[in-house]
Amino acid sequence: MSDSSQQFASDNYSGICPEAWAAMAEANRGHDRAYGDDQWTARAADHFRQLFETDCEVFFAFNGTAANSLALAALCQSYHSVICSDTAHVETDECGAPEFFSNGSKLLLAQTEDGKLTPAAIREIALKRQDIHYPKPRVVTLTQATEVGTVYRPEEIRAISATCRELGLNLHMDGARFSNACAFLGCSPAELTWKAGVDVLCFGGTKNGMAVGEAILFFNKALAEDFDYRCKQAGQLASKMRYLSAPWVGLLQSDAWLKYGRHANQCARLLAELVDDVPGISLMFPVEANGVFLQMSEAALENLRAKGWRFYTFIGAGGARFMCSWDTEEERVRELAADIRMAMAAG
Amino acid sequence: MSDSSQQFASDNYSGICPEAWAAMAEANRGHDRAYGDDQWTARAADHFRQLFETDCEVFFAFNGTAANSLALAALCQSYHSVICSDTAHVETDECGAPEFFSNGSKLLLAQTEDGKLTPAAIREIALKRQDIHYPKPRVVTLTQATEVGTVYRPEEIRAISATCRELGLNLHMDGARFSNACAFLGCSPAELTWKAGVDVLCFGGTKNGMAVGEAILFFNKALAEDFDYRCKQAGQLASKMRYLSAPWVGLLQSDAWLKYGRHANQCARLLAELVDDVPGISLMFPVEANGVFLQMSEAALENLRAKGWRFYTFIGAGGARFMCSWDTEEERVRELAADIRMAMAAG
Amino acid sequence: MSDSSQQFASDNYSGICPEAWAAMAEANRGHDRAYGDDQWTARAADHFRQLFETDCEVFFAFNGTAANSLALAALCQSYHSVICSDTAHVETDECGAPEFFSNGSKLLLAQTEDGKLTPAAIREIALKRQDIHYPKPRVVTLTQATEVGTVYRPEEIRAISATCRELGLNLHMDGARFSNACAFLGCSPAELTWKAGVDVLCFGGTKNGMAVGEAILFFNKALAEDFDYRCKQAGQLASKMRYLSAPWVGLLQSDAWLKYGRHANQCARLLAELVDDVPGISLMFPVEANGVFLQMSEAALENLRAKGWRFYTFIGAGGARFMCSWDTEEERVRELAADIRMAMAAG
Amino acid sequence: MSDSSQQFASDNYSGICPEAWAAMAEANRGHDRAYGDDQWTARAADHFRQLFETDCEVFFAFNGTAANSLALAALCQSYHSVICSDTAHVETDECGAPEFFSNGSKLLLAQTEDGKLTPAAIREIALKRQDIHYPKPRVVTLTQATEVGTVYRPEEIRAISATCRELGLNLHMDGARFSNACAFLGCSPAELTWKAGVDVLCFGGTKNGMAVGEAILFFNKALAEDFDYRCKQAGQLASKMRYLSAPWVGLLQSDAWLKYGRHANQCARLLAELVDDVPGISLMFPVEANGVFLQMSEAALENLRAKGWRFYTFIGAGGARFMCSWDTEEERVRELAADIRMAMAAG
Repeated sequence: MSDSSQQFASDNYSGICPEAWAAMAEANRGHDRAYGDDQWTARAADHFRQLFETDCEVFFAFNGTAANSLALAALCQSYHSVICSDTAHVETDECGAPEFFSNGSKLLLAQTEDGKLTPAAIREIALKRQDIHYPKPRVVTLTQATEVGTVYRPEEIRAISATCRELGLNLHMDGARFSNACAFLGCSPAELTWKAGVDVLCFGGTKNGMAVGEAILFFNKALAEDFDYRCKQAGQLASKMRYLSAPWVGLLQSDAWLKYGRHANQCARLLAELVDDVPGISLMFPVEANGVFLQMSEAALENLRAKGWRFYTFIGAGGARFMCSWDTEEERVRELAADIRMAMAAG
Repeated sequence: MSDSSQQFASDNYSGICPEAWAAMAEANRGHDRAYGDDQWTARAADHFRQLFETDCEVFFAFNGTAANSLALAALCQSYHSVICSDTAHVETDECGAPEFFSNGSKLLLAQTEDGKLTPAAIREIALKRQDIHYPKPRVVTLTQATEVGTVYRPEEIRAISATCRELGLNLHMDGARFSNACAFLGCSPAELTWKAGVDVLCFGGTKNGMAVGEAILFFNKALAEDFDYRCKQAGQLASKMRYLSAPWVGLLQSDAWLKYGRHANQCARLLAELVDDVPGISLMFPVEANGVFLQMSEAALENLRAKGWRFYTFIGAGGARFMCSWDTEEERVRELAADIRMAMAAG
Repeated sequence: MSDSSQQFASDNYSGICPEAWAAMAEANRGHDRAYGDDQWTARAADHFRQLFETDCEVFFAFNGTAANSLALAALCQSYHSVICSDTAHVETDECGAPEFFSNGSKLLLAQTEDGKLTPAAIREIALKRQDIHYPKPRVVTLTQATEVGTVYRPEEIRAISATCRELGLNLHMDGARFSNACAFLGCSPAELTWKAGVDVLCFGGTKNGMAVGEAILFFNKALAEDFDYRCKQAGQLASKMRYLSAPWVGLLQSDAWLKYGRHANQCARLLAELVDDVPGISLMFPVEANGVFLQMSEAALENLRAKGWRFYTFIGAGGARFMCSWDTEEERVRELAADIRMAMAAG
Repeated sequence: MSDSSQQFASDNYSGICPEAWAAMAEANRGHDRAYGDDQWTARAADHFRQLFETDCEVFFAFNGTAANSLALAALCQSYHSVICSDTAHVETDECGAPEFFSNGSKLLLAQTEDGKLTPAAIREIALKRQDIHYPKPRVVTLTQATEVGTVYRPEEIRAISATCRELGLNLHMDGARFSNACAFLGCSPAELTWKAGVDVLCFGGTKNGMAVGEAILFFNKALAEDFDYRCKQAGQLASKMRYLSAPWVGLLQSDAWLKYGRHANQCARLLAELVDDVPGISLMFPVEANGVFLQMSEAALENLRAKGWRFYTFIGAGGARFMCSWDTEEERVRELAADIRMAMAAG
């Protein structure tokens, strides 16, 4: 039922990485306290504080939809609005979860360049309406890396956070693929977050090799007030929390989180390079993280599908999206590239 | 960090059972489709349909708080109310989650006998107020087994569901310890649910030996309309769903779910028998499922705590609660019983 | 503090019409039952049933924001979506009220022609996404007359409702200016609503000459189940309901509702005719109801403002919006037209 | 349809008082700005600031359910709880509105003495549960005068607010009958509110002689942040706001608010005195505000009903409740008293 031709469909088609698995196995010895009072959870939180070089507040949620929505709900009230990219996952793929968790906050869609928000676009949206007949902008959410595989530079984030401060907006980062961004830039996690003015980061574990479990890091600790109650009420407090936190210990203590991000990025870059000279193909976005978006003919797409390759054409910004994962095999990348080349030649 | 003296604190202090673990390991091979389109999820759902001898709708959620709250929200609107026991987990231990997921439904607390609702108690609450200034009763929720370790008989459930039908109420069952109830009664799951008039069951996996993952079974399929959207929006759709569903396959295909329920019950009964003749001790409730509630002197409780035993005194209905799990060791039960005897003698 | 130069700013700048006032005065004799159990409320509901030639369910709310939001919330769940025009009041001027009352339903914006939705635009939005990662379309809301002063013909509404039935969508009509639409078309209220497939109508009283009080009419009575509880819980049940319902009796028993709609429309048409030949001016939309949208130079607008005229330039679709009311004076229309002519000449 | 035997059923069976009516008539001249930008609204707010001798933030809502719910929602988050009396209107007669507006906040019921909360009762509830599995107490709400016709003394409120400060709780006052409390005590509004530590007051206009319109006064101005957006989103911003605010000007500029509160209280006291020596009758609560709660035989109640008197027996704490209003006629009080005497003699 598993199939290597699915390797490029989505980075959440991948399984649990060895480091996470080993930590779960170790955690699975005997009884331990529930609801996060266990030692694995304390250790995982400490690893995050060490990695980010700051005393942030750390929480865990089951998935990215919940992590993002809980964080956004903590940053605004129901009559506030959230500025995001028109390709943002919170807008396009979470079935109204941010609106649900916040009891009605509206998402306002800003123009992007290569999937990235800009200070100018944020400013335009934030200042467009300032009367009580329209929700008051209160949060900006960035996705790092973006849904189209691009990565915000530290200076871009700093510019955005300066705009946020000026306009009274909190800054949230959806880091479902944060490891890929760090790997691409070679920056420290701190440089990409609190040092650049990010208030809250949702750090994705699932796409990084875990089964479930995203971390929510509040660098602005005042915003974390009673956040543990929020998680509990919203059905996001695991009773056997150690199975969410131990994998993080596995990933963080060994730098596996970064190694896997780097590997996925390299596979994406390799794919892009291998098809670079294929006539008729164009890259829709710079390949920076672990996704490759190719503009291809419909005939070629059909040809690829007929060969068993799975990929999506509606995620992010259209085109064919090929995602690489922590466990993508280089050989499969080469096979895919060859099949793409043939498909385009045939089409 | 794990400690065998914690074995009686809570059944969610226990780990992952071998059958669930093995299934996860098997599921962890290569890539698979996300969001429940994988074969493990299909297999788990089929196992449930087979076990319950009916074509029910099956969904998975991360934990019991969410499973219960989502199910209740599907059975009522915000201006409706939910009748439950005053010791019900949804009332006492979910931090207002039912109110949150339903956007305001009120819980109405009914009197219980040994932790169990009765048709008369339900009727009294349901008919007390029938004006629009008070939320309209629409759902009854039972906990099977109850929070105080007792178990509803099939005829009790049938009597309650008859009352529900008469009064226009849907019937939900919180089955966080459903396996313990089945084991105690020797009834089939069908007899305890849809054959007795239950509309929706939340079947607990966590306390039964899983890491995360509760199943929500709609026997009344009309009530399941668009429930998949509800789960997604509320942050309860796992991307790597196979890690929630595969453990169920492990538990269900081998009857491990029932074996473990039976084991935990036996340990509880053993404990109750071993302290039965201890002077000054009294059982607060009949020991039917996997919990033993003892009325003991405060001095004796302190004595036990000093010996390292962990247990709660505020859950359910007070007294000291000792919970047995799928992996409780008989030897530890005997040690605990001996320490209780000594503590009472000392006190 | 009141000023006749404000006569064109908004139709809710107007006061209470004589018929509504007289009914309130009559209702203000002695004590009467609260919460709608009074005779005025029964009479008003009967007037609506007579006017609409059908046994609809009738409710009253304080304002249009609440009436629309409550009705939409009754037609969908939080994980559903509502298709509306990008200029719809629910989208642009209700501060996220629909999202709040529904606990998160998303509004999906469709393209319009002259402010009107079309079957094709609805179909495109409804079919664009059909996966659980995006809210499921469940309702279409029309504004009649539209925010840009145009009016749906009965056949247009019938075509839309046919599309709705095909796609499983409920059909809501925001009738804040329903009287203007009826007056323009010369159609019966029934023809424009349930005979054309509308499930629920919010009939605006405020802009029609009342102080507060919108009527919500469910032609599809099944959708009205427990709607009285919904209103109560959402803070929309008036204790002294007679003051919301009596004015409706005043308006409906005398056909004043239609007379005033007609008058406002005539004033708008007069304004449009008077400026029709002014060089440099263009009508942005056909003048069908009580609003006139003029494209004018910024200098001319400044000139008008300097003369004391109040009007909005950001409502609906930009341009200068001049609204006529139940009590607009023809003489003032002529003065305004003359000033517009001079302003354009000066500019 | 109006009937003087209904004069004691409820104080919201009464109509609009002359002062409020005259102000509405005066406000009903020509056009005025909408949504509270009019001069009447500014004047009303200033009157409140003068009356309360402080620069509070003033908002208007349509009814008491909404005013209370909006205020409570501003004082807590969904995972917080609100401590109230078990007879509080927010608990017993608002159909779950506080839970709805706050998206799930739980009401925790405290014991009362003569309908009044005490520091001890608040402390007990607030400290009972302090774990994340139960909503965190964050607000106390008092009703002044209470639902059973008693009145908090300034020192009682000060004692409660001291407890609130100690425990980190905000203090809200439901003042649906605030005027009756002021009239009874002869205290200034300031003494009973901010000087005694109240953060927010909902000042009832409806029972004081208005058609609709409650005022919400934030003495703690930080808590009022963006409250205007909250009102708008929740459907509580009147477009023709002047009709809510002008009546307040009428009531406040003439001290009619206090005169009417005093009158209603006097009528209640008169009734109590007139039946004081009737054999078999007992007063259930001290008569301080405008309500009289009588313990009477069922036969006597039937006898009264047969004579046409309307009253409730389930509101507040049972017994027969007789409410006096701003316009209750002394003669009718005497007739009622005489009928009560005869009914008891007959029974």
